[in-house]
Amino acid sequence: MATHKPSDIGTLDTEASAPYYRQIYDRFCDAIIGGVMKPGDRVPSARALAEELGLARGTIDAAYSLLVAEGYIQSRGQAGTIVTPGLKPRAPVGTPEKSPAPSRVLANTFRPDSIRPFQMGLPALDAFPRKVWARLGARCAREMQPSDMVHPAVHGLPELRSQIAAYLQVSRGIACSPTQVFVTSGYRHTLSLIAQALLKSGDKVWVEDPGYPPTSDLLGHRRVTAVPVPVDHEGLIVSEGLRLAPRARAAVVTPAHQSPLCVSLSLARRWALLEWATRNEAWIIEDDYDGEYRYVSRPLPALKSLDREGRVLYAGTFSKVLFPSIRLAYLVVPEAQVERFEEVSRVFAGGSPWLTQAVVSAFIKEGHFARHIQRTRKLYGERRDATAAGLESVLGKYLSVDSQPGGMHLILRLLGRRSDRRLVERMLDAGLYAEALTDWTARRDGASALLVNFTNVESQAKAETLGKRMLNIMA
Amino acid sequence: MATHKPSDIGTLDTEASAPYYRQIYDRFCDAIIGGVMKPGDRVPSARALAEELGLARGTIDAAYSLLVAEGYIQSRGQAGTIVTPGLKPRAPVGTPEKSPAPSRVLANTFRPDSIRPFQMGLPALDAFPRKVWARLGARCAREMQPSDMVHPAVHGLPELRSQIAAYLQVSRGIACSPTQVFVTSGYRHTLSLIAQALLKSGDKVWVEDPGYPPTSDLLGHRRVTAVPVPVDHEGLIVSEGLRLAPRARAAVVTPAHQSPLCVSLSLARRWALLEWATRNEAWIIEDDYDGEYRYVSRPLPALKSLDREGRVLYAGTFSKVLFPSIRLAYLVVPEAQVERFEEVSRVFAGGSPWLTQAVVSAFIKEGHFARHIQRTRKLYGERRDATAAGLESVLGKYLSVDSQPGGMHLILRLLGRRSDRRLVERMLDAGLYAEALTDWTARRDGASALLVNFTNVESQAKAETLGKRMLNIMA
Repeated sequence: MATHKPSDIGTLDTEASAPYYRQIYDRFCDAIIGGVMKPGDRVPSARALAEELGLARGTIDAAYSLLVAEGYIQSRGQAGTIVTPGLKPRAPVGTPEKSPAPSRVLANTFRPDSIRPFQMGLPALDAFPRKVWARLGARCAREMQPSDMVHPAVHGLPELRSQIAAYLQVSRGIACSPTQVFVTSGYRHTLSLIAQALLKSGDKVWVEDPGYPPTSDLLGHRRVTAVPVPVDHEGLIVSEGLRLAPRARAAVVTPAHQSPLCVSLSLARRWALLEWATRNEAWIIEDDYDGEYRYVSRPLPALKSLDREGRVLYAGTFSKVLFPSIRLAYLVVPEAQVERFEEVSRVFAGGSPWLTQAVVSAFIKEGHFARHIQRTRKLYGERRDATAAGLESVLGKYLSVDSQPGGMHLILRLLGRRSDRRLVERMLDAGLYAEALTDWTARRDGASALLVNFTNVESQAKAETLGKRMLNIMA
Repeated sequence: MATHKPSDIGTLDTEASAPYYRQIYDRFCDAIIGGVMKPGDRVPSARALAEELGLARGTIDAAYSLLVAEGYIQSRGQAGTIVTPGLKPRAPVGTPEKSPAPSRVLANTFRPDSIRPFQMGLPALDAFPRKVWARLGARCAREMQPSDMVHPAVHGLPELRSQIAAYLQVSRGIACSPTQVFVTSGYRHTLSLIAQALLKSGDKVWVEDPGYPPTSDLLGHRRVTAVPVPVDHEGLIVSEGLRLAPRARAAVVTPAHQSPLCVSLSLARRWALLEWATRNEAWIIEDDYDGEYRYVSRPLPALKSLDREGRVLYAGTFSKVLFPSIRLAYLVVPEAQVERFEEVSRVFAGGSPWLTQAVVSAFIKEGHFARHIQRTRKLYGERRDATAAGLESVLGKYLSVDSQPGGMHLILRLLGRRSDRRLVERMLDAGLYAEALTDWTARRDGASALLVNFTNVESQAKAETLGKRMLNIMA
């Protein structure tokens, strides 16, 4: 057992922003975890260390009491202070997410490698009113009351549920009461709740082909069989569903802008789907992930707005209209299913954080939400046109851009017999992003096309620059 | 179709904090949703309304553009502005959670009816450093970067995972790498992930009897059979588990302070449990919900710290050491299971909100976490003694208080043949809180006792006052 001298701690950084006691604490932690100071080792007395470092005795005491509290060191009274015997000095090995853990909690620098041009699923990050958001976030954090600290209502903050119901009424034509609204942490959580409440192992469910891959993944992990049903220019071909699996328990559809083809489910198909569901007592799961973003004429009312028999479960999200890391989404269930979903939520869900719900609630209440949607709808219309024009002007020989009335990404149809999957790999290597339509297709043998998000492409000039980078790969 | 005059809007509240344009907007929303203004009705011109109210034209324009954006009204150019035709005027009916939705987003008043004396599962709400928390919350909200807005890492913020690993090393004796740490939204989410990754329908799992009811509920809903195994003064009786279900796939235990009896799992039982798990390739799920709160001698190292064969899954939470509405917990999985849990998380979890993770990370990083645990450990020791003394002095004739070294609640053993369930009902009627031990017992026929949380009982005098309220019921 060594006896450590004050100088073993090294000198402190007078320029650093951390207070001295904190720097001393960190030094000790590093030394102990790193094995420099071993269990049983004597540590310098607070008095000696204070003298050595030219600091107030209180500063050292503060550091030591923190170290004692956390179990790094133990005071033995007159016998001095030692590194806790039996403490395992092994440092945690490995770091998550491949990249090293950031050294500061709050990275002040933009990390460009985490967002690539064309990255799917993102809203325009530059258009979000971050100042307003920060102000509301600060206010909510400050105004948190003890009653806001207890277990939150598992179905969501009452105020937020009411606001969602009111918003859906006006903007998506859905008449529902707040009790039908369940706040979740995202689409996966929404779909898990539905599977837990209404599906059982061995059930069949129609999914769109091509379609959003996580839907089939999640159902498969729940031992539910996803039956791919082809999509054409009117959306899911209901007659094909009837042929492939007439007794399916549910259908997952994206009626507003089919994911990924961006076509709208025609009114005839909507009625056919509702009729099938009513006759078979099957469920329709409407994933309305970007219903707000239609650039030609008005947004279409949700399929749910036509639901007279209580067969439609409506899944909405704040991921696209706000941003993904907010982790808030919602599910509207038919009135007759409220009780079932309340039960399942009680068993499986602990509710979403009060803070994020309170901030979103304030954001809606004060009108920022409606304004932000209005503003981004206009902006996305412009960016969509600019991106299409920019890419076509550079890459017209190699691809054609699908023209669809809504959505947040473009579909670039590859001319000739080019593999979209191979091209995507090369784009990723080149620091760009795209997804291959064949990866969204059940049999992996559909049309060859790239899916590229346009919401973060600021101008036609930017699109042309990106197009040229793609040209280098394709030519 | 009526034509509304400016005076239909009523007068504005000059004392209110909402800006005028907002008040006008609200009046219109109320009028339209309430059916006072009907679809197709003419609304006053902005000019006329501005004159009538003595406000600037721009104020009215701001309100109208918000109403247009949200679809309440439509401008028809020269023909004037009308309430959107076809708008369903039906107001959302019903309100969630029985109580009416609060009229303000951020309640400034403490809502006493939501927190009852003795309410289980809560930390001391008065002892939480809310000012520090608000400061960090405001800072994180302000410093959010575009790269923090994208989909968060589904396993948790790398920085937070590292901090949890380091904390567990020092305070719970668990050597793990950050890659083994999965951030979840709470115990239910943790247990769901485990069930999804490692259990299948029909499996048997040992649970403690008495034990935390949600565990069996959740397993039952996943078609996993919970096998109640009795608990004595050394914790779960492993030999009974072996007799009842030797081939169970897993055991859920609370080794630090058994939930609800607060006994610690003895070392001999820990070894027996590990041996059983190793031999049968079964899993031990260690729910360490309040391992930090031991008042006699030092906190015991976690069972996980003895796990040499990678059989223990460790479930921790921030619900008790911070507060429940933060919705953050974590799971440490054996190294060999990391890949499996990464896969399941990708399919089922969308990650936790960036904001709450960033605030907790800063709270730990700056030492507040360690200080808060140290402070509350001391405080809870005092409140525990005060509560026990206060209740015994008033109610000594009717009950005896179990003396256990840790936990956040007391066990009040009822003398005579009194029903704990009936007493709990009457306490709830009287505005108090308690849970009945028999409700935590598999066959509902165990010993009669009340579980009461003491962390929010500020003094012995307070405990005596509460004891007198109980006396009114019991005597």
